[in-house]
Amino acid sequence: MDQKAANTDLALRTRATRVIPGGMWGHQNAARLPKGYPQYFSRAEGCRTWDADGREYIDFICGWGPTILGYNDVDVEAAAADQRARGDAMNGPSERLVELAELLVETVPHADWAMFSKNGTDATTACVTIARAGTGRRKVLVARGAYHGAIPWCTPSVAGVTEEDRAHLIQYDYNDAASLEAAVDQAGNDLAAILVSAFKHDLGKEHALPTRAFATRARALADLTGAALIVDDVRAGFRLHMGGSWELVGVRPDLAAWSKAIANGYALAAVTGNDRFREAATKIFTTGSFWTAAVSMAAAVATIEKLKKTGGIDTMVAMGQRLRDGIDRQASRHGLAVRQSGPVQMPVILFDDDADRRLGNAFCLELLARGVYMHPTHTMFLCAAHTVADIDQTLAASDEALATVARL
Amino acid sequence: MDQKAANTDLALRTRATRVIPGGMWGHQNAARLPKGYPQYFSRAEGCRTWDADGREYIDFICGWGPTILGYNDVDVEAAAADQRARGDAMNGPSERLVELAELLVETVPHADWAMFSKNGTDATTACVTIARAGTGRRKVLVARGAYHGAIPWCTPSVAGVTEEDRAHLIQYDYNDAASLEAAVDQAGNDLAAILVSAFKHDLGKEHALPTRAFATRARALADLTGAALIVDDVRAGFRLHMGGSWELVGVRPDLAAWSKAIANGYALAAVTGNDRFREAATKIFTTGSFWTAAVSMAAAVATIEKLKKTGGIDTMVAMGQRLRDGIDRQASRHGLAVRQSGPVQMPVILFDDDADRRLGNAFCLELLARGVYMHPTHTMFLCAAHTVADIDQTLAASDEALATVARL
Repeated sequence: MDQKAANTDLALRTRATRVIPGGMWGHQNAARLPKGYPQYFSRAEGCRTWDADGREYIDFICGWGPTILGYNDVDVEAAAADQRARGDAMNGPSERLVELAELLVETVPHADWAMFSKNGTDATTACVTIARAGTGRRKVLVARGAYHGAIPWCTPSVAGVTEEDRAHLIQYDYNDAASLEAAVDQAGNDLAAILVSAFKHDLGKEHALPTRAFATRARALADLTGAALIVDDVRAGFRLHMGGSWELVGVRPDLAAWSKAIANGYALAAVTGNDRFREAATKIFTTGSFWTAAVSMAAAVATIEKLKKTGGIDTMVAMGQRLRDGIDRQASRHGLAVRQSGPVQMPVILFDDDADRRLGNAFCLELLARGVYMHPTHTMFLCAAHTVADIDQTLAASDEALATVARL
Repeated sequence: MDQKAANTDLALRTRATRVIPGGMWGHQNAARLPKGYPQYFSRAEGCRTWDADGREYIDFICGWGPTILGYNDVDVEAAAADQRARGDAMNGPSERLVELAELLVETVPHADWAMFSKNGTDATTACVTIARAGTGRRKVLVARGAYHGAIPWCTPSVAGVTEEDRAHLIQYDYNDAASLEAAVDQAGNDLAAILVSAFKHDLGKEHALPTRAFATRARALADLTGAALIVDDVRAGFRLHMGGSWELVGVRPDLAAWSKAIANGYALAAVTGNDRFREAATKIFTTGSFWTAAVSMAAAVATIEKLKKTGGIDTMVAMGQRLRDGIDRQASRHGLAVRQSGPVQMPVILFDDDADRRLGNAFCLELLARGVYMHPTHTMFLCAAHTVADIDQTLAASDEALATVARL
């Protein structure tokens, strides 16, 4: 087999079947997507990506969130390259650590301090551990169906998970203050934390921003009980509000978990917290071999500064609104009941009466064939590199895709 | 304060105190080291690093393990830069994923497959979860004092950890087959895994390679009970043997965790496993936003291939032996009882009658003042960029340092 033939999507999948269990693992496993999605990617630039077979797409997954300024952003890459020439994973942090922590404290109103790691799961796990260390209590409230990471206490799978891994979790329903109150009651005097997603973004379900009533009640219940209010901003962070997603509803958490978009694709996560939990944060032991690696921190400083300077969120909102309005118009013209939900810059597009995903999957496959990469059930992501021309090209594709769906 | 003054180690620590709990967290917290160690680093190249005050050191921590070919290795950086121009964290993996998995399966005799993540803790946690998923059992045997990561089930701290997080761990003593047998008995028919470090490398204690008798017994007990034998090769991987550290004693695990040196400083971790646990590995859900990032995989392929091609381990062994022999000669000339243990390329240097670390700390501080960065209690690391000249310069410093210690 020549080199080119060995690197087609099909050839790579075949090779992978031998050396990777099931051919792929985790959220990027294309076997979880309708047949027709590529598994392997060869290139990415701006808001565009190319699969292993060389097909180009306008990308609305953006690496599943990390890409917020666009792939290969010139300013982020320059900052990263400059730091790389000096050093990355060294015996201790570089000054980039202090700059980044200062920048987060300056940018995020609830943050008196910050700590860093590599995965969103690292950050959510540290938040829960800090809350337990600070309160001396154990119970953690989580919304039914919410995703907070992929180790035994939080992974959506039950394989390899023991009952004890989740012994102190109590469930409530997002945006349902009464169910949250019931969960608080159930925790009694053992309540360590109320953990909330930035917004309701459960897989395959309609998305919803937090209501002001729910968010305010969550804050009040945490205050009343002395528990920590933790916002999991891993998926949404820096896309809804530079100061943290719950700034939109005027509520500040005690602790927040960040990752994905923080460094425009460089592996980094963060915990921010207020002074109430500063001492608790010094007591836990959480660390990793690459957690102070300086290149990812230089990239994060550049990403956050550029988002602020260029109004990146405004761009994503404008482009997201243009996409949503366009698809709404097209759907109604084609007589299709399409529910677009979530913030416009992090949409999910679902079809009515589509329990088997026949319509949603067909829509996405028609888009793929026309050079647009969307996802049928997961939160999607716009980035600041999406332009009016990209959205209009997408809408030209979606009009044809919806026409096809309407004939199904 | 001008920019230069703001970036001294002292100034950075002062600034950090405001925005990072306790000024720093985790294993790189210089507050855990004798006063006089730098906290911040500004540069690294080959086997040398520079602190924020511009002081140069010959480095025997090597970023706490990741640096195995030397910082900023030309071949690894070329491979990484080439991949970076194409894409890093995309919607799916690049062909680098398949290449790297194939390379591990080819290099590591026990490996029929591989999966990737970012932290050593990700890999050890996935091994335990796969073992539980595959056996349908819960108990995991761990050696007393061994380090396997920094989330609640394994972190050395107890702050924020609940009893349930460790409900199914049973302890044994490393290299003590009888204690392992007792632990197996205690687990009864609920034994999921025997977890062993590549070698005994507990903080502040003499290090020891596994005895052949212990390793063989661990393998036999796993076979007898149907449990998984897991080698935690996060710290030692690719420094003792390219096929996995227990190849040295002729024992092959079912699962192994890797990280640190796998990509010469790029954030990456891996699980390798045999076919017995292939299906179990498909059942667990473990993932992260950056786990298929292609640059770290390109770096790993380049690192492993260069280590094989250039005999990197032989170089580290030769330089480590030269260092050990030299210090042994010097210590005896100075009338000091120094215990050097662990593999020569991953040494720890301890002094007799030094419970308060007075001698060990003084030795390290004297070395620091002479441009050599060693650690008083943690496993140290040689890399393939250490040359005879570097070792001899180190020995010139250690001779003076030991002379000072001898006068204490």
